[in-house]
Amino acid sequence: MWSDTRLTQGLGLLYPIIQAPMAGGATTPELVAAVSNSGGLGSLAAGYLSPEHILITIKAIRNLTDRAFAVNLFVPEKTLEIAGKIEYSNRVMQTYRSELGIADPPMVTQFAPPFEEQMAVVLEANVPVFSFTFGILAAEWMQKLKAAGIVVMGTATTVQEALALERARVDFVVGQGSEAGGHRGTFQGTMEQSLIGTMALIPQMVDAVQVPVIAAGGIMDGRGVAAALTLGAEGVQMGTAFLTCPECGIHPMYKESILTSAEDATTLTCAFSGKMARGIKNRFIDEMRPYEEGLPDYPVQNALTRDIRQAAAQQNRTEFMSLWAGQGTRLSAPRPAGQLMEEVVSQVNAVLKKMR
Amino acid sequence: MWSDTRLTQGLGLLYPIIQAPMAGGATTPELVAAVSNSGGLGSLAAGYLSPEHILITIKAIRNLTDRAFAVNLFVPEKTLEIAGKIEYSNRVMQTYRSELGIADPPMVTQFAPPFEEQMAVVLEANVPVFSFTFGILAAEWMQKLKAAGIVVMGTATTVQEALALERARVDFVVGQGSEAGGHRGTFQGTMEQSLIGTMALIPQMVDAVQVPVIAAGGIMDGRGVAAALTLGAEGVQMGTAFLTCPECGIHPMYKESILTSAEDATTLTCAFSGKMARGIKNRFIDEMRPYEEGLPDYPVQNALTRDIRQAAAQQNRTEFMSLWAGQGTRLSAPRPAGQLMEEVVSQVNAVLKKMR
Repeated sequence: MWSDTRLTQGLGLLYPIIQAPMAGGATTPELVAAVSNSGGLGSLAAGYLSPEHILITIKAIRNLTDRAFAVNLFVPEKTLEIAGKIEYSNRVMQTYRSELGIADPPMVTQFAPPFEEQMAVVLEANVPVFSFTFGILAAEWMQKLKAAGIVVMGTATTVQEALALERARVDFVVGQGSEAGGHRGTFQGTMEQSLIGTMALIPQMVDAVQVPVIAAGGIMDGRGVAAALTLGAEGVQMGTAFLTCPECGIHPMYKESILTSAEDATTLTCAFSGKMARGIKNRFIDEMRPYEEGLPDYPVQNALTRDIRQAAAQQNRTEFMSLWAGQGTRLSAPRPAGQLMEEVVSQVNAVLKKMR
Repeated sequence: MWSDTRLTQGLGLLYPIIQAPMAGGATTPELVAAVSNSGGLGSLAAGYLSPEHILITIKAIRNLTDRAFAVNLFVPEKTLEIAGKIEYSNRVMQTYRSELGIADPPMVTQFAPPFEEQMAVVLEANVPVFSFTFGILAAEWMQKLKAAGIVVMGTATTVQEALALERARVDFVVGQGSEAGGHRGTFQGTMEQSLIGTMALIPQMVDAVQVPVIAAGGIMDGRGVAAALTLGAEGVQMGTAFLTCPECGIHPMYKESILTSAEDATTLTCAFSGKMARGIKNRFIDEMRPYEEGLPDYPVQNALTRDIRQAAAQQNRTEFMSLWAGQGTRLSAPRPAGQLMEEVVSQVNAVLKKMR
């Protein structure tokens, strides 16, 4: 039976389907709970959230479901916080602040929430699943998570990264193919070399590691789920497919952009956050292209663009929003997460029946 | 039954598996015939071959098999043949000619074989299947092929290109995902936007066109074949998997490069031919990177690097060879094409059985 995998067995799920953690307000408690209540695994993207906010949101999720769910954090990187790069970034973005009526660049004192405190909340709340991206979790945190019985997932974009995560004792590796929307999880090697398509990446990763692999990138419906499982994945992680659900917290015009985009609408940019990510091309991405090399790394650039993104959202101007999406946007549709789950499951059944 | 598709039905094949046309000597009559005799569809890559050579090779294939096979040609593009670009290209490549002991750049008078004469041979030989790439075949040729009862396949890298091919009345569209090795078939839009991963591309293409879609890019074994079929493809086209077969005519050190490469070994370059293609990174690609924009387009640059590639092959120097390969190289193995076909078929059966 296709739904009987090490992912569903390990977490008591009905279906080996994870709703991807998508930072920036997408993963509301309603979305996370709807997916978990439908037999999948909802994920709260907590990377940008304060420890207090994480705790409140976990409580809200638990009020809506008693099933397993995941909380995702960004592993912090050593970033060289160069004042000159901040000045440069603010200078090249001045024109957008003017257009949006923002008086001055923000005085950012904290570029990302304190990771240690975020982790403390995850442990305190004793969440069922913890997933991380952008690197390898330090051994001390891994030990504490294991001691608490929390299932741990890490994100890899190459076989080498998957092997490194396995050595760090994760329970599952999420293999992120080049089709995936949002931030690349790459933490070794060059960005270009880490852009491996899901079709090629998953079987090679599955052959190399003992831990179960979850396929991510370009999976939008039951056909994609069935394909990922035949490639050897023990589950899938779907992001873009859930972005257009009514439970998802993104801006209505961002949803509309996804619903009206073709498969070639996205591009990779580091202009919004200082880290490479896939999103729908817009004016900000196009115009910032020549300046990308001079911008500060994540999370600094991410903090610097926050006022621009927020003002753009308030003023309904998609040309300045970060419209993260994968390459499967033609397959998006506006339906509740529970209905999406049902459609995916029945399509998997139909597709596999046809193959017999 | 998974093998019962519009591809197998239409061509009387046992399995919906096409051995990709791979120019540059890879597709020997022995390889093409071995695949066709195993129940798949072998393809002769004839783009670089003279009309006489094509005719001789088709006869050689027919001496080895009475099954269907395909012949592939490159649709010619309007290239501006700028003398200044040729001079520039030869200047930046002078160091390689010196290293290889080539006295002078060649005086190239013909950059590609005459397409009209190549097509005349294809029609004269009345091949079972004709496939093309790099564009849309002119209507007059389509009419002649149809009148002769020849099945026609075109290559698309986006949904728009697939729709254009359908309007041109092809019988099958080969959907080439970003994982694919060798030349990109892109003929509309930008190269970057046309790099859609197979997992995302195929279902979107299948939904948009009525003609059957063949999936290509990153498919290396039975898992990939099963995945492509569940995505809605009516067949697959596999290239890199066949490159390491003993029947394949590429240089032994090129085979060895594929057999020892990881999934992140390839990159996209236009330095070898003037057209973007995926191959294993080597010194030539790395060092030519800064000059790519100034090089002449395909087929001019392709003709200009021929002496370098030939001398490199003679001297066993892979750093100057075009090592075209897709992103699935970890899955490559050195076995006869017939054995590869058997292994793929039994793996498809095993994978689908496990899913029930």
